[in-house]
Amino acid sequence: MSDRPQHISLNTDIGESFGAWTMADDDALLATVTDANIACGFHAGDPSTMRRTCETAAANGVSIGAHVAFHDLRGFGRRYMALPRQQLLEDLLYQIGALAGFARVAGSEVRYVKPHGALYHSAVAHDEHAAAVVDSIRQFDQNLSLLCQPGTKLARHATEAGLTVLREGFIDRSYTADGTLLPRGEPGAVIKDPAAAVEQAVALVATGAVTTVDGTTIPMPVDSLCIHSDSPGATAFAVKTRSALETAGVVLAPLTEIKGIR
Amino acid sequence: MSDRPQHISLNTDIGESFGAWTMADDDALLATVTDANIACGFHAGDPSTMRRTCETAAANGVSIGAHVAFHDLRGFGRRYMALPRQQLLEDLLYQIGALAGFARVAGSEVRYVKPHGALYHSAVAHDEHAAAVVDSIRQFDQNLSLLCQPGTKLARHATEAGLTVLREGFIDRSYTADGTLLPRGEPGAVIKDPAAAVEQAVALVATGAVTTVDGTTIPMPVDSLCIHSDSPGATAFAVKTRSALETAGVVLAPLTEIKGIR
Amino acid sequence: MSDRPQHISLNTDIGESFGAWTMADDDALLATVTDANIACGFHAGDPSTMRRTCETAAANGVSIGAHVAFHDLRGFGRRYMALPRQQLLEDLLYQIGALAGFARVAGSEVRYVKPHGALYHSAVAHDEHAAAVVDSIRQFDQNLSLLCQPGTKLARHATEAGLTVLREGFIDRSYTADGTLLPRGEPGAVIKDPAAAVEQAVALVATGAVTTVDGTTIPMPVDSLCIHSDSPGATAFAVKTRSALETAGVVLAPLTEIKGIR
Amino acid sequence: MSDRPQHISLNTDIGESFGAWTMADDDALLATVTDANIACGFHAGDPSTMRRTCETAAANGVSIGAHVAFHDLRGFGRRYMALPRQQLLEDLLYQIGALAGFARVAGSEVRYVKPHGALYHSAVAHDEHAAAVVDSIRQFDQNLSLLCQPGTKLARHATEAGLTVLREGFIDRSYTADGTLLPRGEPGAVIKDPAAAVEQAVALVATGAVTTVDGTTIPMPVDSLCIHSDSPGATAFAVKTRSALETAGVVLAPLTEIKGIR
Repeated sequence: MSDRPQHISLNTDIGESFGAWTMADDDALLATVTDANIACGFHAGDPSTMRRTCETAAANGVSIGAHVAFHDLRGFGRRYMALPRQQLLEDLLYQIGALAGFARVAGSEVRYVKPHGALYHSAVAHDEHAAAVVDSIRQFDQNLSLLCQPGTKLARHATEAGLTVLREGFIDRSYTADGTLLPRGEPGAVIKDPAAAVEQAVALVATGAVTTVDGTTIPMPVDSLCIHSDSPGATAFAVKTRSALETAGVVLAPLTEIKGIR
Repeated sequence: MSDRPQHISLNTDIGESFGAWTMADDDALLATVTDANIACGFHAGDPSTMRRTCETAAANGVSIGAHVAFHDLRGFGRRYMALPRQQLLEDLLYQIGALAGFARVAGSEVRYVKPHGALYHSAVAHDEHAAAVVDSIRQFDQNLSLLCQPGTKLARHATEAGLTVLREGFIDRSYTADGTLLPRGEPGAVIKDPAAAVEQAVALVATGAVTTVDGTTIPMPVDSLCIHSDSPGATAFAVKTRSALETAGVVLAPLTEIKGIR
Repeated sequence: MSDRPQHISLNTDIGESFGAWTMADDDALLATVTDANIACGFHAGDPSTMRRTCETAAANGVSIGAHVAFHDLRGFGRRYMALPRQQLLEDLLYQIGALAGFARVAGSEVRYVKPHGALYHSAVAHDEHAAAVVDSIRQFDQNLSLLCQPGTKLARHATEAGLTVLREGFIDRSYTADGTLLPRGEPGAVIKDPAAAVEQAVALVATGAVTTVDGTTIPMPVDSLCIHSDSPGATAFAVKTRSALETAGVVLAPLTEIKGIR
Repeated sequence: MSDRPQHISLNTDIGESFGAWTMADDDALLATVTDANIACGFHAGDPSTMRRTCETAAANGVSIGAHVAFHDLRGFGRRYMALPRQQLLEDLLYQIGALAGFARVAGSEVRYVKPHGALYHSAVAHDEHAAAVVDSIRQFDQNLSLLCQPGTKLARHATEAGLTVLREGFIDRSYTADGTLLPRGEPGAVIKDPAAAVEQAVALVATGAVTTVDGTTIPMPVDSLCIHSDSPGATAFAVKTRSALETAGVVLAPLTEIKGIR
């Protein structure tokens, strides 16, 4: 074991306002997290929001990721759409390109891609959509990384394609013995007690392992922990998590530093 | 006068299909013009069309311009929208960024910006929208050029901002003595006789001047001539124009060569 | 003067949520007002919101009006769009028809039309858009009424066309001596003191007159007072206004009762 | 057997232009078919197109059906979307209501509903979407009929709900022995020889039966035959089909007459 203290990134979904409609307290969250998954206009995030979010992220030293999604404003990207692989790939290139412009204008750049909502669920489980996500990154810029849960089809496709996979861990979701998340809807899927959730976060980082719903402990090395920005009290929870990690001697840092990407 | 033969670019609006709906014979046009104003998804052009159009343009040695517009699919960008300057700027950054991604994937890049439809009309005449167009270019990449009619507010804003203005000439539109176009709707505004239109094109390039509706001849140096892709017989007219120019000893070349941009 | 107590309607813009984004506390407002201007999907209001809002309105005995707008979700219908009269007319028919379906499913019906945002401002001042609004009502159902400020071009067009005009008064806006509103942006345009605003409301109803910014009192008979639902504290202000009116002996009732429309 | 001649309806998908983009030769088709499935703005058909199409249909004595779809302009409603039943129901009510307004303005009314594209495929096979389609009709107006293939889940849901099912037959698609269509992609799924297709049409009407791909003949009573408007040569094929049917003594009539709906 090295003397270097443990490092971890905190990522959150952000920039999800649209026009007159506001979602989440972006400024407070961007003062707390290290990496921002910024909406690209397809499930949320109009151009003005994208620009402002990129600027705030850059000003806070927060790395920028493209939070790509199905084109479904009304459904907030949470409804599966049976897009052919090629169309999905092109929709993703469009979103990454648009965000890359705003990131550049803000003096920063897009470092990674994370699929949102129904696209995330589709891409971790189905080859066609996993391949489209991976292809969009490779075609746009193979130095971009992919942020997703390790052990999934999506992570495997990315690794096989030579992309850097940033391994995402979940603070407030229960794991099963095979390393997947207990599906929402099942009892105990969401860890509602903030103290227990924070405890899981600290354990994930400190030990590289997680205790599953059946009581066993499995290895689960992670690079970044996900803060759900649309939960009530998201900011307070992010602050509490950050504070507990720092108390445990963990250094919070953006993925660009942790993984040395680009 | 140098011995170098006259050079001219032929530009056209392209990539204006959307989903199941087709507009214009893009492949034939891209085999004839030298510069392509590619729709960016706001008035036309879905991501698949953008990608394909960038690839065909690159394969034909055609330079790529961002044909930015108001966000109005139903109105094809032809209806004025009173966007605040800042919102318009951000809508334009979004479009340029998205197209830049596809251009890069095609092994090319965006070289210039040309506003479309109602935005063109608004930006040549009104300071706020002219400034938004110019700002979008400067903020995105000050090496990008602006393609527009010389002598307009838009051209002046761009020049003052240090941008390269690519001077656009019109083949089938009548000029007035002050160098503006005779407004559509007025008799003789559109030169419907293809032979007369082609003659104006050759004269514009060969002499750097144009004969106006009142019979005077005024200087009108231009870098690129516009082919209207949505007219019936657009491709045949483009071929005829190109052929007449070549017969007159004019070399057709993309703006990147003519102006040495980037 | 009759012995019948003064009657007044309270109307508000409502149903302006969209997908995952919430706007205003619709349930509380619908428990307080008498008439609901329900968004029709063009500036706000997805189909689920429209349905739910119609049902809640019907359950509260609140009359339903179609709050029609330019098709501009991102701009919340607040940006002027230069729609040709015929296209605007057809956009309005679409919206009224869609809302009429939900009203019917809720056991109610659309009783009146009120233009929203930039369309309101355009229609009160410009003949083409005023005519489009009036035509949409006549063509859809000439028994529908129009809710708008009296003395405007829109009101005149409607009256000439034989439509019932429901005269709208403003609680928290200052009037000028010619009966128009002092434009936003000018000092004193918005009456920020709730007590003063409520006082204006009671005076409008009790006296059929309003004191203008230059101190004169002019006749201003109104049928309905507008509650701005997107102001902070909108519900509390609505409750306070209602209470003050009732204390003054005024009966709150929907426009259908006050004007005997349909 | 009665002396009354065989009657049949010819239906087609129509009104699928959008803004500047044209689809199909609507006027020619509306002069040939008896029933029009009119797009409602979600997969195609802007408000101006809807209005014009309703007027032309009414002028030609063609009955109007609501051709409802997933909200997916870019995909032309051909991409499956996992909409929750309630959201789908509300999207359908919105579309039917909007079209009903235009039908009424044209002096006609919506008589039936036919799902389009991916929604059709989903609703004939899956209970949730079948139920949403049926509920939308019942809630809007239980006198509306449903046009769909007999023997499907959708048809069963509708029958159980007490709706009139208008049985659709296919001219240029091969049937299997269990009465379903041979899936596109399988050899022989589409009958490409117009003469053979027309022959199947006449047989369907004259005998109430169809010869399947394995050579057996099964009963297949139908009320309406579908003309695919987006095939090349659609109008010529419609005319040929109509002519062959009339030569065989069949009377072409709208569903309103054939089934006495409303």
